[in-house]
Order: sequence, then structure tokens, then C-alpha cells
Amino acid sequence: MHPTRSDPLARFRDAAAARAAAGLKRALRPRAPGDAVIDVASNDYLGLAMDPRPARAAAEAALAWGTGSTGSRLVTGSTTLHAELEEALRRFAGAPAALVFSSGYLANLAAVTVLAGRGTLVVSDEGNHASIVDACRLSRARVVVTPHNDVTAVEKALADRDEEHALVVTDSVFSVDGDLAPIAALHAAAVRQNALLLVDEAHAMGVVGEGGRGAVHAAGLAGDPRVVRTLTLSKSFGSQGGAVLGAPEVIDALVDTGRPFIFDTGLAPACAAAALTAVRIVEDTPELPARAGSVARELAAMVTGLGLPDPGLPAGAVVPVVLGRPQAALRAVAICADHGVRAGCFRPPSVPEGRSCLRLTARADLGCDDLAVIKRALTAVAELKVNA
Amino acid sequence: MHPTRSDPLARFRDAAAARAAAGLKRALRPRAPGDAVIDVASNDYLGLAMDPRPARAAAEAALAWGTGSTGSRLVTGSTTLHAELEEALRRFAGAPAALVFSSGYLANLAAVTVLAGRGTLVVSDEGNHASIVDACRLSRARVVVTPHNDVTAVEKALADRDEEHALVVTDSVFSVDGDLAPIAALHAAAVRQNALLLVDEAHAMGVVGEGGRGAVHAAGLAGDPRVVRTLTLSKSFGSQGGAVLGAPEVIDALVDTGRPFIFDTGLAPACAAAALTAVRIVEDTPELPARAGSVARELAAMVTGLGLPDPGLPAGAVVPVVLGRPQAALRAVAICADHGVRAGCFRPPSVPEGRSCLRLTARADLGCDDLAVIKRALTAVAELKVNA
Ligand SMILES: Cc1ncc(COP(=O)(O)O)c(C=O)c1O
Ligand SMILES: Cc1ncc(COP(=O)(O)O)c(C=O)c1O
Repeated sequence: MHPTRSDPLARFRDAAAARAAAGLKRALRPRAPGDAVIDVASNDYLGLAMDPRPARAAAEAALAWGTGSTGSRLVTGSTTLHAELEEALRRFAGAPAALVFSSGYLANLAAVTVLAGRGTLVVSDEGNHASIVDACRLSRARVVVTPHNDVTAVEKALADRDEEHALVVTDSVFSVDGDLAPIAALHAAAVRQNALLLVDEAHAMGVVGEGGRGAVHAAGLAGDPRVVRTLTLSKSFGSQGGAVLGAPEVIDALVDTGRPFIFDTGLAPACAAAALTAVRIVEDTPELPARAGSVARELAAMVTGLGLPDPGLPAGAVVPVVLGRPQAALRAVAICADHGVRAGCFRPPSVPEGRSCLRLTARADLGCDDLAVIKRALTAVAELKVNA
Repeated sequence: MHPTRSDPLARFRDAAAARAAAGLKRALRPRAPGDAVIDVASNDYLGLAMDPRPARAAAEAALAWGTGSTGSRLVTGSTTLHAELEEALRRFAGAPAALVFSSGYLANLAAVTVLAGRGTLVVSDEGNHASIVDACRLSRARVVVTPHNDVTAVEKALADRDEEHALVVTDSVFSVDGDLAPIAALHAAAVRQNALLLVDEAHAMGVVGEGGRGAVHAAGLAGDPRVVRTLTLSKSFGSQGGAVLGAPEVIDALVDTGRPFIFDTGLAPACAAAALTAVRIVEDTPELPARAGSVARELAAMVTGLGLPDPGLPAGAVVPVVLGRPQAALRAVAICADHGVRAGCFRPPSVPEGRSCLRLTARADLGCDDLAVIKRALTAVAELKVNA
């Protein structure tokens, strides 16, 4: 017989106490409407979440279409709005075909599980997003995790495999470190080794490359049938949802067999409409992605100039300041808050042990006054040597 | 060396051809705005997706809060709207605490992976939803799949275990068969065997039990710390998103360690606002859940009366008509469409081999005229003996 224990929740309390002692307790802090804080924590890189144009489109869609899509995309959950959004994303990104999901997380789960299964090898970068890590587990493929941005290790894993099919998967802009994957080199390795390449453009779409078309497009690979991309509608496009871009064969396979597609309710019309308007705005306003990039470089220079840990040259809008212990990151975020600046605080399990950080994100709509306030906040962080 | 093949997508084309030959090809058919079709395919059981009150709340939220939540719930993705929605769900369902997700799918992934992991036993009903099946795989727990609604098998699996911790997981109303899990008996077995019980109320919330408070509430177990519930905001509540209801210890664990919570963008404000309004409407209008149930029973009686396969007494709003081969189900759906009725068509992998079905769903807002049209459509299906 298994041991019994009277209180079935005791183990959760014990674990919570251990997390608290390690500085890893989290609390939800709901934002109030219209708070005047300067935001360098969100992923609203182009400022489109608060732009009135997508908001009006969302409002109209809710009134015209209703508040939900009412079913799976395969039953009642596909509206002409979803089809328009898929066509707009496809055209913007120069992709052969596109499929919209209710989140980027589920788009990654579906893409990896459809492209890889038992008898396939998946080669995954150690810095990949949690949704990719979960997707690899779910796929039941053999998974080799390679050192960060190590193309040689990727090619070796591919060449050494016994499996016929293989998939290389990587973030394009990494979500915490903010650096760029070597897309062209990974693609060359995938071609040589007869593998597919899946690139998560969550933090690149709308920021990286010509007009914000992402890193795959910048590498000239947008139309390559061997390359599949995932993206989210919740960062640069300011809404909610996700998408997969790829060859029609891949999209067909997702529609017929992708469990997180088939068994999930379609994206709400308001979110689809907001994202559609956002894609059109980005298409018409290439200055927006350019501005997000220049604000990011300005933030990185500010961090380095103040003697804080060097974030490196940001590839997109993410500027990490690695402070080490979780308590140091918490302290830095509190100092920023005192100055009216909301910065991100990333601790394990979001980052590896010893890499807790302040995560700053650039927004295209940050002005000089905002940057001056941010500078004062970061100066205070630097002076207090929270990472000492 | 692995065998090479010049066309990396050939295997997807081969698989698509095989699916087409088996009647398992799927196509997205986007709905046009305001089509006049009578819907018995969606999961909008209370008709709230098209109700102007949640739609207005969604529109206002998009304009006031923006089109996206802009980040993880732990960074910038929690607004006071999310907190209000959690409180409303908690109170409506009589739960100790609540946590909102961007989908029911991700709520299930988070709940199972946080409640179970390596060294835990999960006992899962063979009829459980795909998101639970995926969640079990992702959890890395040992999983025992038990025959449908077989409490003896569940208790035996629990009693035979070596693991200290165990989790029993079940849909309350099953998504395709529409029948109810034996919640009270499963709970008693879980108590005897010192296990937790996770109940997915996706198809029960808003339909089953007093005022639509679901099957756990109906069993008098809403406040039991051993019982965890998941639900979706995309069916009776007519919006998008999901939630977990449970003891504060469980919600804390989800916030601190639930990967599909931590690493996913928070629910869009428009969806949160729509769901909040919907919960309040259901709370104030207990006739709505009652009406959905009576329409479901009327549909089931109609099906049986016409000599079509008996759907059984519906526990919620789902009325399945099992026709066998996928082609038969496709044929029946086409006949319904000819009569201006949109019915669901479920084929493998959504149902087991040989169980392809017409899936009818009741809606509280279906009137006598609608039911008359549906009867004409089903009469035509019965006459053509599509399942012969
Ligand atoms: C790299 C990456 N991929 C995927 C996701 C998931 O996207 P979503 O929030 O739309 O689920 C995120 C963040 O949320 C991300 O940072
Ligand atoms: C039983 C059940 N659980 C979970 C889900 C997933 O919910 P959502 O569509 O909100 O992801 C569904 C259907 O979509 C379902 O039928």
C-alpha cells in the first residue's frame, strides 16, 4: 500500500514555503486602468495594444460578430475575419500559407507535434521558450538540446541521427536574452542534413528585418517550404493569439491532425480584428519597427553607460540586465517602480539559476521624456549596486 | 547515415492523400457575418456570444484597456478586469480561489502538470478531452487510462499504486458523448485512496446543476480542497479563455510554477470583460441554464423519435448521433446544411474509429420555429439512412 497522509494539500504549502525562502514567490499585481507608469516590461513593442485603431476594430468586431468564435476552428470557430487575418499575415510575412491559433503557446505545441513525433529527431536550442520545450516533450520525438546558438552542435546531432526525419527548432529573437539565432546557418545545416527548420518569431515579428517582417524574411527564407514559422499576435501586434506560417502541406497537416488546433476554441473575433488592423498598420508604417529597434539600442547604451551589466546589442526590442540572484532583480524592479517605471523581473524558472534579471523592453512610442525618467530609475539601480 | 529524401514535404502530401481516401480530410469553412443558418454546432449554449450585453462590455474594454493584455499575467498581463473576473468566477462556482488563463486548453495543461509530475500517478478516463490527454503526456507522471466512467477501475488503479501522490482526472460532461461523470463516486474513491480529483467542467459550467454552477457544485463538492476544477470561458460564457478553480494552495502553485500560465500572454481585456458580464448574466438568470437543458432533452427526444441512433439522456447541452463511418457523418451534415441547419461533424481523431457522429448542441435561445426546421433536417437525415 502507498503511504497515506491526511492533508492532500500539505505538499503544496511546503513547496510554497521553500519558494518564498528562495525569493521565488510570485504575486499577481493587477494594473489599474490608465495608470501613469512608464512601461518597459510589456511586449507591446509597437505601442499598438493602446492604439485606438485596433481598439475600434476590436470593438466593432465584438458587436458585429459576437464575443466568442463559439467553437473549434473546424466547427463554428472560423469566420471570414479569421480568413482575412490569415491572408494578411501570409502576405505581410511573405509566407506560402498561414493558420491562426488562440495563442502563440498553442501554435508552438501544434507546430512541433505535427512536424515531429515518435521516430523523428528534434534538435532544440537550450534558450528556447517554454512553449517549445513543452512542445518537444509532448511530441514524443527524441529531443537533443543543443548549447545556445551552436550551429556545429545542431549539425552534429542531425548528422548522427538514425531517424529519417528531423526538425531543428529555435526562437529567432530569444525571449529573455534578446539575441538573434543564426537563422541562415541553421537553415544551411538543415538543408545539408535533410531536416525541417521551425523558427519561433514571437519577439521578432514586427521588430526585426525589413518593415518588421521577422528574421526568416530578413534571411531571404520566407518562401522556403522547408522553413516553418510560428508567431504570436500578443506582442508587436498588440492583441492575443498566435499563428503558424508555412507550406500549404504543413498548414493542411495542422488542420487535419494538430490537436491544439482541432480541440481548441477559435480566436475571439475582437482579437482577430485587432490583430488584422495591427498587421495592416505595421505594413503601412515601416517607421514603427525601425523606431522600436532604435529605442532598444538606446536603452542598451544607457544600461552600459551606467555601468550596469552589458545587455549586448539587442536584436529586437528585448534588453536584459542580468543581476544574478532573484532578490537583486526584485530590488531593482522595486527601485524602478519608485521612479514610476514598470520593468520586468525574470527569475527561475523563467531564467536559469543565477541569471535573474531586470528585463527592459523597448516600445516604438517611448519618447525622450520617458527615456529621461527611465534613465533616472536605472541610475538609482546602478548606484545601489543591487547586484553587488 | 540516415536515409535522405529530396523533398522534405513529401511525407505530408502522402499522409494527406491517405486521410482524403479515408474521409478524414478537413477544410476550414469561414462563416460570413450574419448568415441566417440555424446553429446546433457551436458551444454557445446560452446564446451569450451574440448577446449585446457582453459584446458592449468587450467593446468598452478594448477601448479603455487596449486590445491585448501586453504580457504574461506575472509581468504586465494582469489588469483589475482579470481580478474581477476571477472573483466573479470564484463566487459563482463557490470555489475557494480562481485563476484565469487565455484558453481552457492551457488551463488543463497547467492544472495537470502542476498537480502531477514524475512520481505521481494520474488516472484518466478514456473519454477525456484532448487537452487532458496532452496534459497527462506533458506531466511525465505515470498515467493509467481507465474505461469510460468506471469507478471500480479508477479505485483499483489508485489502490495498486506505488506512488505517494495521485490525481484522478475526468471531464464532467464529456465533450462528444454528452454524458456525465460519476463525480460523487470518483470523489469518494479519491478520498479513500488519498488522491486529488480534477474535474474539467468545460461543458457543464453554465448548463449543469443549480443555476449552471456545474457538476462539482451539484455534487456538493465546490468547497472541497481536494477537488480542482477547470473550465472554459468559450462555451456557456460565450467568450474566450479558461480558468482553474481550487484551493489557494493550488492556485499559488499554478502562479509560481505553472508553465502554461507563466509563459503565456494574459487573456485580452475584451475577452475578460465579455466573460465577466456573461458570468453575471448567468448568475442573475437561472432560467438560461435550465432552458439549455430542456432544449437538449427536446433534441434528444426528436432524434430518438425519428429512429436515429439514441443519443441517451443528455446531461448538459451535447446531443450526439453516432453514425459510424466518417462518410456517413459528412453526408448527414450536408443534408442538415441543405435545410439551413449547421450541425457538428465529429470524425477521428476527435472520436474513436467507427464512432463518427453528428453532434448537435442545444442553445437556450433556440425557439419553436428553429426546432421545427431542425426537425425537418433530421427527418431528411433519417429518411436517407446515411448510417445504413
Ligand atoms: C518566444 C515565445 N514564443 C511563444 C510565446 C507564447 O505566445 P502567447 O503569449 O501568444 O501564447 C511567447 C510569449 O508569450 C514567447 O516569448
Ligand atoms: C472538455 C473540454 N475541455 C477543454 C476544452 C478547451 O477549451 P478552450 O477551447 O477554451 O481551449 C474543450 C473545448 O474546446 C473541451 O471540450
